[in-house]
Amino acid sequence: MALGFGVVIATGTLLLSLPIASQSGQPVAVIDALFTATSATAVTGLVTVDTQTTYSLFGELVILALIQTGGLGFMTLSTLVALLLGKRITLKERLVMQEAMNQLTVEGVVRLSKYVLIFTLFAEGLGALLLSIRFSSQMPLGQAIYFGIFHAVSAFCNAGFDLFSKSLVDYRGDLLVNMVITLLIIFGGLGFSVVADIYTKRSWKRLSLHSKIVIRTTLLLIVTATVIIFLLEYTNTKSLAPLPLGEKILASYFQAVTPRTAGFNTLVIGDLRPVTLLFITILMFIGASPGSTGGGIKTTTFAAIAVAVWTIIRGNVDIEVFGRRLPRGTVLKALAIAAVSLLLVVTVTGILLITEQADLQMVLFEVTSAFGTVGLSMGLTPKLTTTGKLLITATMFTGRVGPLTLAFAIAQRLGRQGIKHYPEERIIVG
Amino acid sequence: MALGFGVVIATGTLLLSLPIASQSGQPVAVIDALFTATSATAVTGLVTVDTQTTYSLFGELVILALIQTGGLGFMTLSTLVALLLGKRITLKERLVMQEAMNQLTVEGVVRLSKYVLIFTLFAEGLGALLLSIRFSSQMPLGQAIYFGIFHAVSAFCNAGFDLFSKSLVDYRGDLLVNMVITLLIIFGGLGFSVVADIYTKRSWKRLSLHSKIVIRTTLLLIVTATVIIFLLEYTNTKSLAPLPLGEKILASYFQAVTPRTAGFNTLVIGDLRPVTLLFITILMFIGASPGSTGGGIKTTTFAAIAVAVWTIIRGNVDIEVFGRRLPRGTVLKALAIAAVSLLLVVTVTGILLITEQADLQMVLFEVTSAFGTVGLSMGLTPKLTTTGKLLITATMFTGRVGPLTLAFAIAQRLGRQGIKHYPEERIIVG
Ligand SMILES: [K+]
Ligand SMILES: [K+]
Repeated sequence: MALGFGVVIATGTLLLSLPIASQSGQPVAVIDALFTATSATAVTGLVTVDTQTTYSLFGELVILALIQTGGLGFMTLSTLVALLLGKRITLKERLVMQEAMNQLTVEGVVRLSKYVLIFTLFAEGLGALLLSIRFSSQMPLGQAIYFGIFHAVSAFCNAGFDLFSKSLVDYRGDLLVNMVITLLIIFGGLGFSVVADIYTKRSWKRLSLHSKIVIRTTLLLIVTATVIIFLLEYTNTKSLAPLPLGEKILASYFQAVTPRTAGFNTLVIGDLRPVTLLFITILMFIGASPGSTGGGIKTTTFAAIAVAVWTIIRGNVDIEVFGRRLPRGTVLKALAIAAVSLLLVVTVTGILLITEQADLQMVLFEVTSAFGTVGLSMGLTPKLTTTGKLLITATMFTGRVGPLTLAFAIAQRLGRQGIKHYPEERIIVG
Repeated sequence: MALGFGVVIATGTLLLSLPIASQSGQPVAVIDALFTATSATAVTGLVTVDTQTTYSLFGELVILALIQTGGLGFMTLSTLVALLLGKRITLKERLVMQEAMNQLTVEGVVRLSKYVLIFTLFAEGLGALLLSIRFSSQMPLGQAIYFGIFHAVSAFCNAGFDLFSKSLVDYRGDLLVNMVITLLIIFGGLGFSVVADIYTKRSWKRLSLHSKIVIRTTLLLIVTATVIIFLLEYTNTKSLAPLPLGEKILASYFQAVTPRTAGFNTLVIGDLRPVTLLFITILMFIGASPGSTGGGIKTTTFAAIAVAVWTIIRGNVDIEVFGRRLPRGTVLKALAIAAVSLLLVVTVTGILLITEQADLQMVLFEVTSAFGTVGLSMGLTPKLTTTGKLLITATMFTGRVGPLTLAFAIAQRLGRQGIKHYPEERIIVG
């Protein structure tokens, strides 16, 4: 899986380094081409060079293809190609796909791939249509359609790449653009299995525990984040204060959705208050849901830890949620993912504090954005040193590949029983 | 327990607000007296007003008494008083003491109290003697003895209060002072049960799992931190660069020991590099060992999580350390402590980012220092608004009382339910 992404990124870097990919005809520096290719394939959206002014139409299409490949996942795409060519999928291939798509069971993986294709085409098509209609009043029809497709794909894949050089700040008060983009982000971030579950079950009660946790956590995070951002920024003259009430609410909602892990913004991130930036950093760390186009430690990891901690504080033993008991192995797995992710973010932040001229808040924000494949930026990324660019590139790659791979490795191994059993002995913690 | 601390702090605040406690005769502001009393009782060492120049000898003695009370723990002290008065300790009282002293079993709690008294008097007495000898070459004998006692108690109780107005910066190269202070800090921070375990067993093999983990983690953290701080600050012209090699090493070692959770410093904290400050913030969050005079989430909590994560990544099921199996309940308890502590630190940091004029690094450092009852400061505490002082006061109090209380509530409840569901997890060997 990591290898697949690596090949895609290498190809992307090569193509983006070609003179034909550059707007000016002067080839883009290899380090920036690598950064762009990784950012696109990892559906992050951080950029060291501005997409629209730096790259030609060819370059932009390469980026779009990388986004779609990275968003759907390399294995899903190859499976679809195989299906389209009429090839039979072997069990071994299904197992690999199970890993790549981060599913609990191998059954239905092929069927899921078909759902993925249909759902992706439907969502991106509808989004592109609506956005194109909106854009057509501001630009030539051909460009409007191209912009509609590019931003619909970028939103659904939670990539956050834009062609406006300042994200969607100009559409801050535009209800249609806000709704289309956020719905694409949210559905892209739920994970395909959840969408398939909703589509086939059509009843809350019959949904899998996984789907219920994903939906409940996603809703809770969006509503809470909207309220908190609204309250924190209400009097900030650089962000919400000058806007009418409706636009205040709309902008709060948009900025609440986008850290997990889309990366578009309608407010200028650098103008937000320090406390809001800290809050957004936490949202970016949590991220989207498993098996989706989004990154982060994932909503279910966050939920498992939250439920477990709440259970322990209340003094219960069984970690229960929605009338089901979470296996302790799942909670320990969530702990491992969160701890390793935190270690990664803090370590990279520490190194960048040495190599870059920026304070903790800015560095932590940028690193979390890269790890969560979010793409929001306080403005540090374009100013990064070469070391910084390489480190952020590696962080984006790990953010997209690592948690998935790690999670699978853990899940697979947890099933195997230990051979030696030592006697238990308690220790005092805390 | 929280009530006991509350009463002690209230009494301390009252005494420190008296005109007699003030150097100038003008009573200290109540908010600052409250801050000082909480800081002393919670053995933190953060100060809004300078100890030596603000308080009279009477005020300093009140602070010293608060430190000793807070360091030994309210319950330990009352138990000792009861023992000295020849009263019989009932089982109920022993259970309360078990909570207060954060012990696994009720047996030996009374015996432990005696060890605590003897060990404390011995360590503080020896430390005071050595420090007094050193100080006597620089000040009148009476003052040298007083300073020796004050700083020995402050070091052993991990309080970090000093009478030099700039901590121990003047003794940066003094081997005797460095060694006495750090050894007092380390032994005070091991936890009394570990010291008693070492004293009675006198063999690594026969030590309890708890003692082994505490000793190994403490050593590992001190050595690693010394090396990391040495490397990070080696070329910093404001800290290590101008010093001879021996003093570089000594200062690195001192600054590696003190964040967990003593609070003395021989380098000016505000002059350290951002990456070093981030690293020290992590050390402060980890803190000392359970049942000690130190704060933080505790070494065993950190070790339990680290071992669990490593186990899960390697794909094993049994969480093993030193040939023993850690109960999953212990790991989940550690997770709860770490998660609740992180939530507390981040929330208070967020609020202070609104109320104070300071950046994330400075606020996070100060809040973690308060939570871990460390007392290291980048200089924000004296400049805090009244809201900020109240919040930091509450954080110090929670840091000293909360994790202990929470841990007990969890331990008691996990144990009670555990008998029903997982009787095998109750087995304690060693
Ligand atoms: K993104
Ligand atoms: K302290």
